[in-house]
Amino acid sequence: MPRVVIIGGGFGGLEAAKALRKAPVEVTLLDRRNFHLFQPLLYQVATGSLSPGEISAPLRATLRSQKNVRVLLGDAVSLDAERRVLILADGAIEYDVLIVATGAQNFYFGNKDWEHAAPGLKSIEDATAMRHKILFAFEAAERETDPARRDAWLTFVIVGGGPTGVELAGALAEIATDTLRHDFRSIDPQNARIILLEGSPHVLPSYPEDLSIAAEKSLIKLGVRPRAGIRVTRIDADGVTMDNGERIAAKTVLWAAGVRSSDFGQALKDHAGAALDRQGRVIVEPDLTLPGHPEIFVAGDLAHFEQDGHPVPGVAPVAMQQGRYAARVIRDRLRGTQTVPFRYFDKGSLAVIGRRSAVVEIGKLHVTGAIAWLMWLFIHLMYLVGFQNRVIVFLRWGIQYLTFDRGARLITGKIPAPEKVEVPMWGR
Amino acid sequence: MPRVVIIGGGFGGLEAAKALRKAPVEVTLLDRRNFHLFQPLLYQVATGSLSPGEISAPLRATLRSQKNVRVLLGDAVSLDAERRVLILADGAIEYDVLIVATGAQNFYFGNKDWEHAAPGLKSIEDATAMRHKILFAFEAAERETDPARRDAWLTFVIVGGGPTGVELAGALAEIATDTLRHDFRSIDPQNARIILLEGSPHVLPSYPEDLSIAAEKSLIKLGVRPRAGIRVTRIDADGVTMDNGERIAAKTVLWAAGVRSSDFGQALKDHAGAALDRQGRVIVEPDLTLPGHPEIFVAGDLAHFEQDGHPVPGVAPVAMQQGRYAARVIRDRLRGTQTVPFRYFDKGSLAVIGRRSAVVEIGKLHVTGAIAWLMWLFIHLMYLVGFQNRVIVFLRWGIQYLTFDRGARLITGKIPAPEKVEVPMWGR
Repeated sequence: MPRVVIIGGGFGGLEAAKALRKAPVEVTLLDRRNFHLFQPLLYQVATGSLSPGEISAPLRATLRSQKNVRVLLGDAVSLDAERRVLILADGAIEYDVLIVATGAQNFYFGNKDWEHAAPGLKSIEDATAMRHKILFAFEAAERETDPARRDAWLTFVIVGGGPTGVELAGALAEIATDTLRHDFRSIDPQNARIILLEGSPHVLPSYPEDLSIAAEKSLIKLGVRPRAGIRVTRIDADGVTMDNGERIAAKTVLWAAGVRSSDFGQALKDHAGAALDRQGRVIVEPDLTLPGHPEIFVAGDLAHFEQDGHPVPGVAPVAMQQGRYAARVIRDRLRGTQTVPFRYFDKGSLAVIGRRSAVVEIGKLHVTGAIAWLMWLFIHLMYLVGFQNRVIVFLRWGIQYLTFDRGARLITGKIPAPEKVEVPMWGR
Repeated sequence: MPRVVIIGGGFGGLEAAKALRKAPVEVTLLDRRNFHLFQPLLYQVATGSLSPGEISAPLRATLRSQKNVRVLLGDAVSLDAERRVLILADGAIEYDVLIVATGAQNFYFGNKDWEHAAPGLKSIEDATAMRHKILFAFEAAERETDPARRDAWLTFVIVGGGPTGVELAGALAEIATDTLRHDFRSIDPQNARIILLEGSPHVLPSYPEDLSIAAEKSLIKLGVRPRAGIRVTRIDADGVTMDNGERIAAKTVLWAAGVRSSDFGQALKDHAGAALDRQGRVIVEPDLTLPGHPEIFVAGDLAHFEQDGHPVPGVAPVAMQQGRYAARVIRDRLRGTQTVPFRYFDKGSLAVIGRRSAVVEIGKLHVTGAIAWLMWLFIHLMYLVGFQNRVIVFLRWGIQYLTFDRGARLITGKIPAPEKVEVPMWGR
């Protein structure tokens, strides 16, 4: 039977594997991690609402009953396209068809040193590190006696006003005004400044302007200060500098501004002649294959696919549809039939801002407020993988809506070394 | 108002803080972490049943409404007992009364090199590292083609047959026989060998012999191989050697054999004249204070308190009662009344083995089987801190009981580097 190897257990890879359920092929799903991660809710881990396990589903359990799939834990580093061999960090695996769905990673526009000061949000480890940074800032502010330094600990800058940036800013505002409201003795968390920086004229630049403006109004109501049309020129441990020369002193800077495709794109360029765009995405044929390599598909964030003159966006629905499409082409080929070119069917976009506040675009229909928020909740619960996860997340959201609490506010991992080495004396 | 400083937000410290609710004192609760950890369920995080956030409660939220308490994130490293100043890694804090409840840490009987090969179970990071090790072993076995190496990946040795070791062994057996049953293609997880080593003649040596024997029978029924009366002389990355010369090849060795008291005991010895026992515990007066220092209390696992000729055990109920007792002495002193010496009231002990299987000792009453298991479930839910945690854990247990699934089976953190550097070819 033909051997199909899928790299990546994200939205694209998992959907491809599922869509091959009844095909006469042997599928190997390879991932560095043993779980599928529901990235749209990662910001809720970063802001203490959900635990990592609640938005992750073990790949083996998800594909348990699908007998033609095996799951392998491994790291794909290269390939020999002539001999059809995928090279892992610790082995190699032959394929007849390869589906590459390795996704995207944080990208700092060439400023590698920003990464340490402004963590991004792509993995579970990113999310727990960001949670650590956010919660630790309030703890440090509580202990800080110098007013300027205390203000810097209570200033949060989010770089990038796309959906992730907006969601992070909204959640941070709720942490400061509701969750932590009565938790401190020296500081008032409500004094926290949450600043959302966006280079375009409005936040949510990919949305229609009326929804962008509605989102800005909602953010301002929550206490966020959105600043659009502004770019960051420097990020360090003490704050950010902007292109108008202004400096914001902030101990917490979060990155939501850019991603680039994963490193496997480079391997496809070097060893299979793929062409990459400026973000490192692989330019694919109308059937999502590489030019000259009909046996190699690219799906999801790694793929550059043009439709109506624009590349399709790097969102979960695109990845899922592309994964399913690649599986369909494989099935059609085995049957000897032709497949029509891939076409992304845009069901709409939605971004949440906070409690009873979201924006939804479904074609000409623009929805804001509580109804949009309920739609967001429903769709995210529906697509979340794993029955147990759905029940737990539903329950957590219900409890948190009623109590204003957040159940997963842990500072884990290494506590940063104290900045001061002197031992100041402080009573009360 | 007198300043009471409590070091440690575990069972002892948290109970002391709560019991000072109405006392005319200013309480500072200091911890390196921002959360209280419910250690009795830590093994369920290590075995993928629960997420870290579900057994942790933010200290600030727990003590939010208690206006005479402030919570501080900090690391106590030493003290100046004369001037009544506690030295932190990055500061100092004055006290009138000090309650030290810093607990215990893993102890390898002087074999520091065992720590890397056989992780213990005291912190959230320990638990996620252990979970990583357990789940990764099955993944590695699935990919291993050499039968001997595959067997070593499928062999799990738990060192120490106390409650933690028994709970880990039982959960591991359920993972192998139920949870992962249909998840792999090359291996059968049911072939995993789970070996529980205990130095005493029976597992659960602190329990009455009939319960120990019942526990052994239950373990054997689950597929665990308990081996009592045997000691480990060497632990390395490839297995364990025992005092009878026998060697077990095992890639996964888990440590549940010993703890010693936390490092702050040494600070009390060096700077407040405390006497330590062989495990490093601080020998305390009948009122839990240090000899010559009535203003310094020691509560919980760090304290060596003799009752009826034996030191009281290092369990949560002792710590809670001692924390409350220290608070009571402080209140009595402010009122000018005497306090009777501390006495541990033993409500009983209970250890879970697996599904519908536990052992419970309440005085003369010995219970095993499903009733003991229900008692264990009920008591652990009751004592778990945080309403949201209780609801979520109850629900997870319910779902997992019905589905045999475990919802938090994530391999997070750094994936160990592959052992082989050559690139073997493997098709199917």
